[in-house]
Amino acid sequence: MKTSILMLTISALSVGFSAAAEPIQIIQPAKITEPEKVELGKMLYFEPRLSKSGFISCNSCHNLSMGGVDAIPTSIGDRWQQGPINAPTVLNADFMLAQFWDGRAKDLQEQAGGPIANPKEMGFTHELAVKTVASMPAYRQKFAKVYGSEAVDIDKITDAIAAFEKTLVTPNSPFDKYLNGDEQAISADAKTGYELFKSHGCVACHNGPAVGGTSYMKMGLVKPFHTDNPAEGRKAVTGKESDKMVFKVPTLRNIELTYPYFHDGSVWSLAEAVNTMSELQMGQKLTEQETAQMVEFLKTLTGEQPQIVLPILPPSNETTPLPQPFSKG
Amino acid sequence: MKTSILMLTISALSVGFSAAAEPIQIIQPAKITEPEKVELGKMLYFEPRLSKSGFISCNSCHNLSMGGVDAIPTSIGDRWQQGPINAPTVLNADFMLAQFWDGRAKDLQEQAGGPIANPKEMGFTHELAVKTVASMPAYRQKFAKVYGSEAVDIDKITDAIAAFEKTLVTPNSPFDKYLNGDEQAISADAKTGYELFKSHGCVACHNGPAVGGTSYMKMGLVKPFHTDNPAEGRKAVTGKESDKMVFKVPTLRNIELTYPYFHDGSVWSLAEAVNTMSELQMGQKLTEQETAQMVEFLKTLTGEQPQIVLPILPPSNETTPLPQPFSKG
Repeated sequence: MKTSILMLTISALSVGFSAAAEPIQIIQPAKITEPEKVELGKMLYFEPRLSKSGFISCNSCHNLSMGGVDAIPTSIGDRWQQGPINAPTVLNADFMLAQFWDGRAKDLQEQAGGPIANPKEMGFTHELAVKTVASMPAYRQKFAKVYGSEAVDIDKITDAIAAFEKTLVTPNSPFDKYLNGDEQAISADAKTGYELFKSHGCVACHNGPAVGGTSYMKMGLVKPFHTDNPAEGRKAVTGKESDKMVFKVPTLRNIELTYPYFHDGSVWSLAEAVNTMSELQMGQKLTEQETAQMVEFLKTLTGEQPQIVLPILPPSNETTPLPQPFSKG
Repeated sequence: MKTSILMLTISALSVGFSAAAEPIQIIQPAKITEPEKVELGKMLYFEPRLSKSGFISCNSCHNLSMGGVDAIPTSIGDRWQQGPINAPTVLNADFMLAQFWDGRAKDLQEQAGGPIANPKEMGFTHELAVKTVASMPAYRQKFAKVYGSEAVDIDKITDAIAAFEKTLVTPNSPFDKYLNGDEQAISADAKTGYELFKSHGCVACHNGPAVGGTSYMKMGLVKPFHTDNPAEGRKAVTGKESDKMVFKVPTLRNIELTYPYFHDGSVWSLAEAVNTMSELQMGQKLTEQETAQMVEFLKTLTGEQPQIVLPILPPSNETTPLPQPFSKG
């Protein structure tokens, strides 16, 4: 027993990598500096009355029970309209250089206002969202505590939601423990998978604490990506033809939980996603064993999921706009 | 100050009622005897993969952030189909003599199977629900712990959901504290409202720990209730013409949270609901003050809401049936 512990120690030392020099960084737990704002933001994140129907909340499509996604190819919106693109995870989203697949929102606050007013998503208006929240004394009191005034506006609503979302970080994954020096935290196959992940060049895009989200990249760099999804990526933002099919590189944190994969949500299997990326982005064909090892590595990126106590929302009253779940308008 | 405390004490004593003799009983906190089953049931309660779309869970329509309801007249089902009747609250539901408005399910376990397989609600089949849950090793392990075998079946799924639902009790409302001897727990108007509630005969149906749920009663006893909702109540279960429009008496616990009211969800204001019930069931017209006092009393029935830590659900894998959010079938 003593011998084996000694051997493990030697083996750990002999790897000799420095976490700081690795392309993937340890993800740190969120520091909560404004707990009351975070609590208000959590209420609003779970608030279905921010939608026209009174049925859809942020959590409907970025479900914190399921890795911060809805786990379907594209989301279900107001009156069951089919969303245009796969819902990206809200977990670790603050590490992204911008929000949405095409990066059209500069940060989480700007993002949060989008779905509320998108007729295909929550189908509401900012004006009605504000009126709804402001109608409830319990919300007004919380706004007063956090913002110094009972006045509710859309910027405060989205600021609070963003403050909550910034806490949705998933530290202490097996891979983080490994980076932190715990050689036993991941399997030998996962270690090989990580070496392949580096040597095959995946880290060129999938790097940093979120293992992605730090750059834009063309989907189908070497070979074209075939999809029925009409999304054009960054071109929709910049207008440049060269930005066609250029998307924000998604985070690979919790990738085991955030299927189906790619902006069109077309691939359910992580092995298939790895093979497709390898072929289309790198022009490389992996062996079956390499794919399995890469998948094994990717699964070590699943971190501790945020522990969320479900908020209790205040009741509507006679001044609250009525939800319109079945109106045609 | 001393005098006023003395006076209050005397006044409390002088009421002299015995809680045991009251028609409404104190609601006791849930006793959890099988915590692992409750935990499994909570996962299944929040499990959208028990629906065809992968989007609708029990919590979608019985939202524990919102008094155990969806707060819309009738629920949104698979492909946004409009439900036939207002979703009753899951809170304190185990105190009901039977489940659903027409009492067609004898208990919570029998109820839980209904929406899963109802094409207008979760739109799934029991077979696919079982296959989905059984596909995930983390679920199988939990079933083994709770039921002694990894085998999943619909009876175990609904048994676990029911075990969780039995814990969804809301004790320590201001009214319970009042019943328990704390004279200051409710206002003078609420006390008068309670006296009116008794003297006007509301307690004939709304009694017991859940302030309802112990009997069936005709909706529109004295004057007919006009509604576009085609639900026939108990007649659908018994086939008897005399059971037409006879519904289970709903609980009034947390009634401030469980709007809109009645089986058709047609009334949003508690004052209007009180007036309507008084007129249609008792043939009595309340004064504005009486209505306000009754409402004041009813609001004291809002208890401590269950504190729910959101469950983290295991990921699907290649053996999990794919959700069908947009298929026409």
